[in-house]
Amino acid sequence: MTTESAYDPELMAAVTDLGDAVRELVQATVRTTVGPGQLTAAAARAREVSRGLLTSTRNRHELPALDDPIAFRRVFSPVTGVGSAIAPPLRIRRDGAGVVAEATLGLQYEGPPGFLHGGMSGLLMDQLLGSAAVAADRWGMTAHLELDYRGPVPLQTPLVFRAWVAEEDGRKTTVLGSVALAADPDRVLVSVQGLFITPREEQMTAYFGEITDAHGRHTPPGRATDATALHPGSDA
Amino acid sequence: MTTESAYDPELMAAVTDLGDAVRELVQATVRTTVGPGQLTAAAARAREVSRGLLTSTRNRHELPALDDPIAFRRVFSPVTGVGSAIAPPLRIRRDGAGVVAEATLGLQYEGPPGFLHGGMSGLLMDQLLGSAAVAADRWGMTAHLELDYRGPVPLQTPLVFRAWVAEEDGRKTTVLGSVALAADPDRVLVSVQGLFITPREEQMTAYFGEITDAHGRHTPPGRATDATALHPGSDA
Repeated sequence: MTTESAYDPELMAAVTDLGDAVRELVQATVRTTVGPGQLTAAAARAREVSRGLLTSTRNRHELPALDDPIAFRRVFSPVTGVGSAIAPPLRIRRDGAGVVAEATLGLQYEGPPGFLHGGMSGLLMDQLLGSAAVAADRWGMTAHLELDYRGPVPLQTPLVFRAWVAEEDGRKTTVLGSVALAADPDRVLVSVQGLFITPREEQMTAYFGEITDAHGRHTPPGRATDATALHPGSDA
Repeated sequence: MTTESAYDPELMAAVTDLGDAVRELVQATVRTTVGPGQLTAAAARAREVSRGLLTSTRNRHELPALDDPIAFRRVFSPVTGVGSAIAPPLRIRRDGAGVVAEATLGLQYEGPPGFLHGGMSGLLMDQLLGSAAVAADRWGMTAHLELDYRGPVPLQTPLVFRAWVAEEDGRKTTVLGSVALAADPDRVLVSVQGLFITPREEQMTAYFGEITDAHGRHTPPGRATDATALHPGSDA
């Protein structure tokens, strides 16, 4: 059980707002049928917005100001990040012995026409399974991930994602999960199994030794963040 | 061996330009350290760009004008799409008996600090493996995907992704693949195995019966597109 650090609520609101706006833009670029002239004009305006943002940037070893790696708050996670235009974003919360998230996914995640890209199930479920491990106080990095696709997952349709710890063995945690329609939650469309391993101390140092927070301070991840992030509203 | 249909080169250039610009913007939102006022202003401008694009849109059952599902040209694929701001995009090409792609991935794909999100390897490799099946003239939908993570995959570092068909058995194709550093291609960081199954005729109708091209014509996918897309320059 960890206590989440305080953050600047004004900055959080602004990062969330920009994440929402750029996420909408990503989907608009995929759905639009306007002509080449309008597309090119839109590209020029998007580049102007980028230029303004890039006047001040962080590097790869510096965590975002809003992140809290100990409490697993990662605002730019490509799955759960409120500031990530790639993420749906999934809002993962505890539910019974595991975790759950609901989402309706747009055309930007398409694989076969009308259906979710098979690899997107891998991206989203890796996070769900990792979060289930964290919810059981067993953080680890993904060592093995296995997905069985039983039926195609439709876009623009409410979905439910679940994960729960199946087995604990020293530094190893086995987690199971599923993707289903919200309207038919017992018919599993994608069944998932993952093995998460908590790195040894020397691996932690090798992997994350250079990471600093936004103030340049070294932040040894006591329980390092991975991509896992339970929703701030949860009690993880 | 299929022949790719012609497309409007002006539209392709504009879609590519907008994809590039919005992809840069996605990364800029993750890297920026500007304050709340500038973030909120950027959000407002991004929403204006979206509004212009959303004046004319397609629905889920209508393929984009530039797509060719028979030749696997999918311009908005979240892995290979030149028009997708989610995609790196990977440029997959034939290489020997399989396929290969190179990419250097930015902070927007982060999982553990400094490293690629484990689920992103799943997203990218599902596509690579599917493309290897297509390159062997064995299109199928993902039935099983399995990833072994042997070491963390660094961001902002040139990577090489490979996949090749290992076994063919009726409608089933087993494909193997790997993720490695371009500078150390023989040390596998993520090892991947996938099973792809070509749907039966009645499944094809059930899954893709409603799909039309941009002119509203029903386009029965003789060999339906999935997310797989070899780069247009390749000879698939």
